[in-house]
Amino acid sequence: MSHTIKKIAAIGGGVIGGGWIARFILNGYDVSIFDPHPQAKRIIGEVLDGAERAYGKLFQAPPCKKGKLIFCDSLAEAVADADYIQESVPERLELKTGIYAQIEAHARPDALIGSSTSGFKPSQLQEGLAHPERVFVAHPFNPVYLLPLVEIVPSDVSDKAMIENARAFLEEVGMKALVVRKEIDAHIADRLLEAVWREGLWLINDGIATTEEIDDAIRYGFGLRWAQMGLFETYRVAGGEAGMRHFMAQFGPALKWPWTKLMDVPELTDELIDTIASQSDAQSGHMSVRELERARDDNLVGILLALKGNDWGAGALVAEMDKRFYEKAHDGVRTEEGALDFAKPLDLHTARVAPDWTDYNGHMTEHRYLQVFGDATDAFLALIGMDKAYLAGGHSVYTVETYIRYLDDVPAGTDLRLRTQMLGCDEKRLRICHEMLSGEDDHVVATAEHMLLHVDTNASRACPFGSPLKEKLGAMKDAQMALPVPDHAGKGIRVIG
Amino acid sequence: MSHTIKKIAAIGGGVIGGGWIARFILNGYDVSIFDPHPQAKRIIGEVLDGAERAYGKLFQAPPCKKGKLIFCDSLAEAVADADYIQESVPERLELKTGIYAQIEAHARPDALIGSSTSGFKPSQLQEGLAHPERVFVAHPFNPVYLLPLVEIVPSDVSDKAMIENARAFLEEVGMKALVVRKEIDAHIADRLLEAVWREGLWLINDGIATTEEIDDAIRYGFGLRWAQMGLFETYRVAGGEAGMRHFMAQFGPALKWPWTKLMDVPELTDELIDTIASQSDAQSGHMSVRELERARDDNLVGILLALKGNDWGAGALVAEMDKRFYEKAHDGVRTEEGALDFAKPLDLHTARVAPDWTDYNGHMTEHRYLQVFGDATDAFLALIGMDKAYLAGGHSVYTVETYIRYLDDVPAGTDLRLRTQMLGCDEKRLRICHEMLSGEDDHVVATAEHMLLHVDTNASRACPFGSPLKEKLGAMKDAQMALPVPDHAGKGIRVIG
Repeated sequence: MSHTIKKIAAIGGGVIGGGWIARFILNGYDVSIFDPHPQAKRIIGEVLDGAERAYGKLFQAPPCKKGKLIFCDSLAEAVADADYIQESVPERLELKTGIYAQIEAHARPDALIGSSTSGFKPSQLQEGLAHPERVFVAHPFNPVYLLPLVEIVPSDVSDKAMIENARAFLEEVGMKALVVRKEIDAHIADRLLEAVWREGLWLINDGIATTEEIDDAIRYGFGLRWAQMGLFETYRVAGGEAGMRHFMAQFGPALKWPWTKLMDVPELTDELIDTIASQSDAQSGHMSVRELERARDDNLVGILLALKGNDWGAGALVAEMDKRFYEKAHDGVRTEEGALDFAKPLDLHTARVAPDWTDYNGHMTEHRYLQVFGDATDAFLALIGMDKAYLAGGHSVYTVETYIRYLDDVPAGTDLRLRTQMLGCDEKRLRICHEMLSGEDDHVVATAEHMLLHVDTNASRACPFGSPLKEKLGAMKDAQMALPVPDHAGKGIRVIG
Repeated sequence: MSHTIKKIAAIGGGVIGGGWIARFILNGYDVSIFDPHPQAKRIIGEVLDGAERAYGKLFQAPPCKKGKLIFCDSLAEAVADADYIQESVPERLELKTGIYAQIEAHARPDALIGSSTSGFKPSQLQEGLAHPERVFVAHPFNPVYLLPLVEIVPSDVSDKAMIENARAFLEEVGMKALVVRKEIDAHIADRLLEAVWREGLWLINDGIATTEEIDDAIRYGFGLRWAQMGLFETYRVAGGEAGMRHFMAQFGPALKWPWTKLMDVPELTDELIDTIASQSDAQSGHMSVRELERARDDNLVGILLALKGNDWGAGALVAEMDKRFYEKAHDGVRTEEGALDFAKPLDLHTARVAPDWTDYNGHMTEHRYLQVFGDATDAFLALIGMDKAYLAGGHSVYTVETYIRYLDDVPAGTDLRLRTQMLGCDEKRLRICHEMLSGEDDHVVATAEHMLLHVDTNASRACPFGSPLKEKLGAMKDAQMALPVPDHAGKGIRVIG
């Protein structure tokens, strides 16, 4: 890393400025902030809280030591000893140029100055400055602490080494720096956004769609694709084996169709098609269309599962589908108390090994065994009546001991069936075991034994089972305990060496 | 569900038709397909393979019984007894109307007919038909088996009950049905896509950006947002506490700015602003801006983690950040062999309880304990020299038994420290235990004991430790075994009841 940036100044701490501050501070950098808004402290504090919450979920590593946030009474104080200055004031050119004149009066002449402007060109911001060469656009996307893109736009007078230094620094705080080769109004991303915004306004204006319908058209459809591949790589894959040139031939004519008639569109000359096809080769040619398809599908599956975890948008639909598939799979499986024969081990759960459950050996990793056993334990607890109401009443059942034996490898995609047996219970304790079965021969791939304790969750201590758990356990106890005890139960790990 | 659709016909089996077929079949529906393309069987088979692979990852439920795929020699045969017909032939109007005439000649008059067209209006497809009322647009998005959006577009002559029936059916196969209120060229989503496509072509034509740069501007930025919220909800959140009307006032003027000068843009009248603000209230008003922000951040975190799992795009950047944070956290932690004192238990791993590691009790769920213990075991194995080269040589170490005691609740956000001790080893086996510590007083929240077995992974059987594992274990054995054995080791779960 060539940059030696240590101290940062932020001018403006709204949604965007606050997002920058959060990214810098949570990456360990001190930030001096100047924002005359009377509520600036509260607003920045709220953005920071949101960012810390998000980072706590996003990163497994312990957080690094936070940088200091210093509120300054003047712009002069904030920029005085800054190595990097990020300007995020409202989008009015005369306001911004006034700020730049002030920065220049008080900052070191070699301090880098990035602007969050979404529309202005760097040459507009540089006008009239003694050191215009260190001013550039560094345009981020909301929420700045989570979205990695930053468009770095230099002008003709920008200092190449300074731009390179800014790029290295912004990448070091986790961003994807896109250095734009030619300055234009609104850079790259906002031109695309503005195009969609215009079209969206027309659709509403003409009574074709509401804001919600437009949003749904995005987030259930192409928006999912664009989180992982953009416009051109997506179309390259859609073009199939024939590739980008074929796609252009197929969809190029649409530019002449009625819905484009009011627009100024570029002519699809052979030269432009050649440019696009060869740029696409340079971008994606290292992967075959089949490989790209698989990468796309894996990414979409991951995104859908992430949204499923939040019961949101397209992920909520996946959760519903999964529920329907489970219902179909469990048709004919007896789970109601009356239909279960307690004189046999209990079939209460099935699972399938997900592809991301495997480890470097290519088999299901050890904690996923326990996840499946834990789900089977939950199914047993549901059977004896531990439902939401029981939990809400301040009682629960905690696992206090677990003993697992791993007997066979289980690759991704394997269907697993769990067989559960109650080994004993007393006033407060419950001992159960599971066998994990696989294959047409139902061979045992792993076993687990658990000691569970009934607890008063408010007092955090053990207490006797309440109704209906007590009665349900009593009803099955004799039949279950008459079954032979599996040979793996009651054992511990032996001493060796 | 009011629909009684059982048999489906597909006319055309390219990328889109094949995607429809996959979605129908994997939801248990039989499909008759007619496609005269000589390679149709191979192409559809490949799409189906991809879809089955994706569904295997997407759903935890066991797959439902697949529908039958029947290849037909004629269109007449395919549609004869169909309840629902999906047309996905190339985008040429005269080709499509010819197909509709043939369908009408051979299908039941009450069969529903959906078209995959991305551009034509339903009235154009209905022209000249005796039963135009059952023809509508059902426009999906590639890959059809994964992306839920389908735009259902009726015309003025469409039968409302039939449209409702189509909607119910397509939702039953997991789709998000967006019934478009007014037919226009390209419906809704493709108008937005076409706007971005036009702007993208300009950027390339004018030498501003390459296909890769445009794609990066999407997938590292707003594309991530659009997988979960669309244009308007995103801007509502960005507008902050002041809401949608404020956002419009702030960004509306951009429509008059230079980059829009060649475009026909709607005038932002008070009436249009009112319409947008009240539609946005109807869409998102049930959540406060703060709640929307949290939902957005949780979704973005999930999406980023999903992409991190595939080491792709924005997720690959998160992986790099995580690595840097770990490096910072481990600065000063001695992990090199020489610096470790084997006469003490070993400090080899730390972890932090992620928010989604908790269960319905609000504490770390049981299998996440084992995940952290497993990571500590991996750190121990790395210490004794089990690296990628050792694994590539056809040897590994498998866990064969695990005994865990859960001693204390651990809420989300808790920092954990692991203390590891070797309890014994022989030629092929290794016995270790871990204590999981938390808090300033380093109290023990859980313990684990593991028996590990050294294996020849090709032969799938135990074999003696090789170099350097054997030597490294030998070097630490005496010192480690001189330590007192923890009282939890060598125990099993007791018999009760």
